Amino acid sequence: MDIAQEVKKIAHRARETSSQVARLSSAVKDRALGLMADGLVEKREFLLTENRKDLEQAEKEGLSTAMLDRLALTEEGIEGIAEGLREIALLTDPVGEVVRMWRRPNGLVVGKMRIPLGVIGIIYEARPNVTADAAGLCLKGGNAVILRGGSEAIHSNRAIGGILQEAMEKAGIPPSAVQVIPHPEREGVEEMLKMEDFIDVIIPRGGEGLIRFVVENSRIPVIKHYKGVCHIFVDATAERSMALEICYNAKIQRPGVCNAMETLLIHQETAPSLLSLIAEKLQKAGVELRGCPRTRQILPDVKEAVEEDWYAEYLDLILAVKVVDDIGEAIDHISRYGSQHTEAIITANYANAQRFLREVDSSTVLVNASTRFSDGYQLGLGAEIGISTTKLHAFGPMGVEDLTTTKFIIYGDGQIRNS
Amino acid sequence: MDIAQEVKKIAHRARETSSQVARLSSAVKDRALGLMADGLVEKREFLLTENRKDLEQAEKEGLSTAMLDRLALTEEGIEGIAEGLREIALLTDPVGEVVRMWRRPNGLVVGKMRIPLGVIGIIYEARPNVTADAAGLCLKGGNAVILRGGSEAIHSNRAIGGILQEAMEKAGIPPSAVQVIPHPEREGVEEMLKMEDFIDVIIPRGGEGLIRFVVENSRIPVIKHYKGVCHIFVDATAERSMALEICYNAKIQRPGVCNAMETLLIHQETAPSLLSLIAEKLQKAGVELRGCPRTRQILPDVKEAVEEDWYAEYLDLILAVKVVDDIGEAIDHISRYGSQHTEAIITANYANAQRFLREVDSSTVLVNASTRFSDGYQLGLGAEIGISTTKLHAFGPMGVEDLTTTKFIIYGDGQIRNS
Repeated sequence: MDIAQEVKKIAHRARETSSQVARLSSAVKDRALGLMADGLVEKREFLLTENRKDLEQAEKEGLSTAMLDRLALTEEGIEGIAEGLREIALLTDPVGEVVRMWRRPNGLVVGKMRIPLGVIGIIYEARPNVTADAAGLCLKGGNAVILRGGSEAIHSNRAIGGILQEAMEKAGIPPSAVQVIPHPEREGVEEMLKMEDFIDVIIPRGGEGLIRFVVENSRIPVIKHYKGVCHIFVDATAERSMALEICYNAKIQRPGVCNAMETLLIHQETAPSLLSLIAEKLQKAGVELRGCPRTRQILPDVKEAVEEDWYAEYLDLILAVKVVDDIGEAIDHISRYGSQHTEAIITANYANAQRFLREVDSSTVLVNASTRFSDGYQLGLGAEIGISTTKLHAFGPMGVEDLTTTKFIIYGDGQIRNS
Repeated sequence: MDIAQEVKKIAHRARETSSQVARLSSAVKDRALGLMADGLVEKREFLLTENRKDLEQAEKEGLSTAMLDRLALTEEGIEGIAEGLREIALLTDPVGEVVRMWRRPNGLVVGKMRIPLGVIGIIYEARPNVTADAAGLCLKGGNAVILRGGSEAIHSNRAIGGILQEAMEKAGIPPSAVQVIPHPEREGVEEMLKMEDFIDVIIPRGGEGLIRFVVENSRIPVIKHYKGVCHIFVDATAERSMALEICYNAKIQRPGVCNAMETLLIHQETAPSLLSLIAEKLQKAGVELRGCPRTRQILPDVKEAVEEDWYAEYLDLILAVKVVDDIGEAIDHISRYGSQHTEAIITANYANAQRFLREVDSSTVLVNASTRFSDGYQLGLGAEIGISTTKLHAFGPMGVEDLTTTKFIIYGDGQIRNS
């Protein structure tokens, strides 16, 4: 059978299963999640063997150390994945929740009930842990899921998929609720993106290239996450030690992720005394600064920032720095160069804090806290399936609730409409 | 200037204006809505003159009476449109509402704040009242809007657009917040659907042909409303007079709309005694019935329903009728042939009412009430911009809240992330 045919069969099976998955009780879903976790731990030797096949192939193909690192499974890694599934089991089941209910003058009682989205397609790269995480979250939300990981992780993903399906069967859930596309060829993705009658939403997770490919080729709605060019604005009244700590944390703690700070904006009144302290602390940690002309008046050794630096998502120990006149200029800069991901203000000024929260058009806006908190777990969503930087359906970190929608339910006692 | 160029300019202006529109105070928006209403009433003679141009052209082209009817403006019609805008002014402003707020163990206070979607494109047919309704709702939600009505209403739409823009200028709102595409050519729509960096969402309103065209040609997310094949299931325990009244209302009160009943499912135990009463009442009102074999045992004169009848959105005085074994068969029938729009059960059985609400996968599910209540005004949303039959972002009747999304706002006091 050719690949397109098989992808079609997978999508058909997912759609058929989805109404069964939507009606599963919380107890059955949570039992399955526990059995999935147990299965992964029990079969860790098998998983590590399959993972080694991927690693050997990747080494042959000369993948970067960073890529190899993301691809590699370890005993601890597998324990972590299992623990993640057990945590998903502990979350409140969103399906069936009535989020609001009101009464109409004619006596109709109208509510909005949470229901699953249906069939979710996840397209991702490298990290095999996404296979288990995404499957667990989609199942918890009552959805069937089709997983298409990177070709470099094909053995690992197939092995994880098989273990998850076994666990589901034990719990009485049809295994087609979680399906891994077993082909590494790009054709499989292309076919998947055409199945708009069978897949309700596509969530891509990976680099900008993957996401653009998905957006350009999909007939199915895509929840996208482009880059995170996150800003911190240090206001004139910022408490100095707080500004130092937060800037350091946002840049250094994990520079390669989308919620790390990429541009520092600092108020002209505080720049002369505070900027050199921040710069020193960051430079000691190996950060290269690129500054605007006013920055370079204070820090003459800093390289000049060019236009591209303001747009850059470095994902590295590099930081663009700009001195601004006031909060208005800071907000304008963010609006022009930002990616609508995450921005923070450090301030002691009440009105500026409120204004920044209100006017900055990003999915997560913080006052006096590190941009690194823009994350589903950190914000209390219990888990994270991705971060949306477009506004339709979800904006910002997405938890299991964002894998549901609502329908109107109406209790009447004979009402008819007269006009 | 060619059409594509002008549509591009319109979209660019909308994007530029959108952040200003997002920050407008409720008072300014509501004042503008009032002035829009006043403007339409004051300039009604001009509107009627422009509308007559459209009507004359439409008559020449031999449009159907139904189409002419939808196209025609009257003095009362204009008063109604104005009244609609005044009602939108009375709605609560959704922008800035914090829909939920919680505290994390580390002291961060996390909330979700409602914000506008940005730039909304509305593509619609015939009815010129949509121009004012949609403009008013988008503005209330803090969005810039681009309106592209049908070519047959081009004079009316341009006239309404001009009056709305004048009113906005008086209220201090940039007129590019509401723009009507002044070209009747299809090229304008095609160009609009390519502007994914400038328009955030497209809402088509009209027949299935229009909606399919938009979905197939849009690079921008589309909130779609396909057909409404609405079912009523009369259960074994249905109160007879209630079943009669609701079926009559759902089929007869306005047969040409998407929330009218198209298929009646009736329990085998109640069919022998109740079906002939329902049939008589409907047939007296001119309804043609098409029945399954069991229906025809009870009503031998009824035409036989063929497979296509179960899928049909008649929008007319025709009704498909099927006798079912039980609620399970009713739900299965709806799941197979339905359009996920609106379904109702008439029952006195508590468990069946709850099961129907839970298991029927449609945007609006009612117990003991007419399907005709599936409507934004009727459900208390204050207004309606459309009805979504796909699950992403919104499902079912959409009000002004559905023209917004939420961002995370976070109040900290120096928190940094350690892991």
